[in-house]
Amino acid sequence: MATTSTTPPASAAYIKALRVGEGFDLLALDPRSTPGFDGDKAAGEKALAALGDRLAELQERLYAESKAGGTRSMLLIIQGMDTSGKGGVMRHVVGAFDPQGVDITSFKAPTAEEKKHPFLWRIRNALPTAGQIGVFDRSHYEDVLIVRVHDLVPQSEWSGRYAQINDFEAEVVASGTTVVKVMLHISSDEQKERLSERLERPDKHWKFNPGDLDERAHWADYQEAYQAAVERCSTDGAPWFVVPADRKWYARLAVMNLVLEHLEALDLQWPTADFDVEAEKRRLATMP
Amino acid sequence: MATTSTTPPASAAYIKALRVGEGFDLLALDPRSTPGFDGDKAAGEKALAALGDRLAELQERLYAESKAGGTRSMLLIIQGMDTSGKGGVMRHVVGAFDPQGVDITSFKAPTAEEKKHPFLWRIRNALPTAGQIGVFDRSHYEDVLIVRVHDLVPQSEWSGRYAQINDFEAEVVASGTTVVKVMLHISSDEQKERLSERLERPDKHWKFNPGDLDERAHWADYQEAYQAAVERCSTDGAPWFVVPADRKWYARLAVMNLVLEHLEALDLQWPTADFDVEAEKRRLATMP
Repeated sequence: MATTSTTPPASAAYIKALRVGEGFDLLALDPRSTPGFDGDKAAGEKALAALGDRLAELQERLYAESKAGGTRSMLLIIQGMDTSGKGGVMRHVVGAFDPQGVDITSFKAPTAEEKKHPFLWRIRNALPTAGQIGVFDRSHYEDVLIVRVHDLVPQSEWSGRYAQINDFEAEVVASGTTVVKVMLHISSDEQKERLSERLERPDKHWKFNPGDLDERAHWADYQEAYQAAVERCSTDGAPWFVVPADRKWYARLAVMNLVLEHLEALDLQWPTADFDVEAEKRRLATMP
Repeated sequence: MATTSTTPPASAAYIKALRVGEGFDLLALDPRSTPGFDGDKAAGEKALAALGDRLAELQERLYAESKAGGTRSMLLIIQGMDTSGKGGVMRHVVGAFDPQGVDITSFKAPTAEEKKHPFLWRIRNALPTAGQIGVFDRSHYEDVLIVRVHDLVPQSEWSGRYAQINDFEAEVVASGTTVVKVMLHISSDEQKERLSERLERPDKHWKFNPGDLDERAHWADYQEAYQAAVERCSTDGAPWFVVPADRKWYARLAVMNLVLEHLEALDLQWPTADFDVEAEKRRLATMP
């Protein structure tokens, strides 16, 4: 199996456990499993909370590097069926990042303006700048997921997009952006329960849309489209990671660890001062 | 003294304690004081952590309201001298918000493009959309602060900006945005200590710029410019709040409470379902 372009550290347990490689079979992956972690929910929540300090330092180093002229950045892409927990990952994982260094873009159905452009146009416009962690809540993969399931463009068109995506991502990686692509993988039964909860609780009604059930009716087609996407677009430079997500606590812990392991692989260093530190100390000391 | 346009709840202790009213004197406000809170640092940090659940629910209600067609939003403006703790407020207060509902804009020296437009142009472009909490790290107030201190435009020009700002903010408030303007108020001694720490610690060197000392030399001019700004632009619809900030823990607690009190004043309700809940339950139940 191919390795990632940046060498993950020996401790990169989640990268190893969740990476999509040759022969990957989505239907064979148990959405209730917890690869790379053998504790229970309480232990998982404790483990997630304990990662905050490491994250804070790594993210600050990435940001600091850019202030000293560095060009590296990170892009975290989150995909998954409705109710798979994308919002929870945003709140509990991305919410743990320093908000000054993160930018979430949520991709909805393309606007009239966006439709005038090639499908990657709006994606390019949302790429992270140096030092930042960009986060995509859905992404260009919708252009080979919902678009494929409903033939929103002819098959002759969407079938060419896998290669276009691979070329595009290779270019993004070459420009200095570490790309981390995550699919949150839930079971049909779990989705049924989560949709049911949204219908039972008045404070969750606003999250429900009757269209969610129309989409659910295409469950098998979506699984097939996801299988094709992660299989055809898991490249050396930008591999896919499929995270079992029936247990929300595990999915959050796994995504956080994937981010941390990729940040660690960057071997980020504090920039050295580009001014005379001792001279500035003396100058400050003489000020009132 | 005038009251805010939305009536703060009886519990709005921080709004009452920190609001800039008639006769406000910046130089008379002790930067080490803790208005509205009589505990120590440990108690303050505990109090801040305890506010998370209330914040999460209020922010989600604001977001949900917009999904049901509501147009309200919030804009939090943070101003303060270098090292006054703006970054810490972003990390520890704004960092506690759901990142899906928040958008930070950090205003630097205007770009060539921005300079071609009136000073409020880039501000308008960054206003929050419905359901969002926009956060400004520095703002249009720099156009009556650094610009005034260094006469970057003629006095005849900057002196007219106070009225322009008041008109602009009145328009923003009328459009449904609650504006919360906060100045973090530190002492000159405290700044000296914080700059000194940045020089002592190699992992903080990247935060230091020799220009910071050039600005420090204008301390008194900046205090005068801040006094003018908060005095002339504390309006009924968009009052200023000056937060003593020599104690970082207090400043964070105060800003969080100011946000919460303003959110509570909005009396946010969960939207009611715009679909037949029982029919959707039956439909879901029949699905595999």
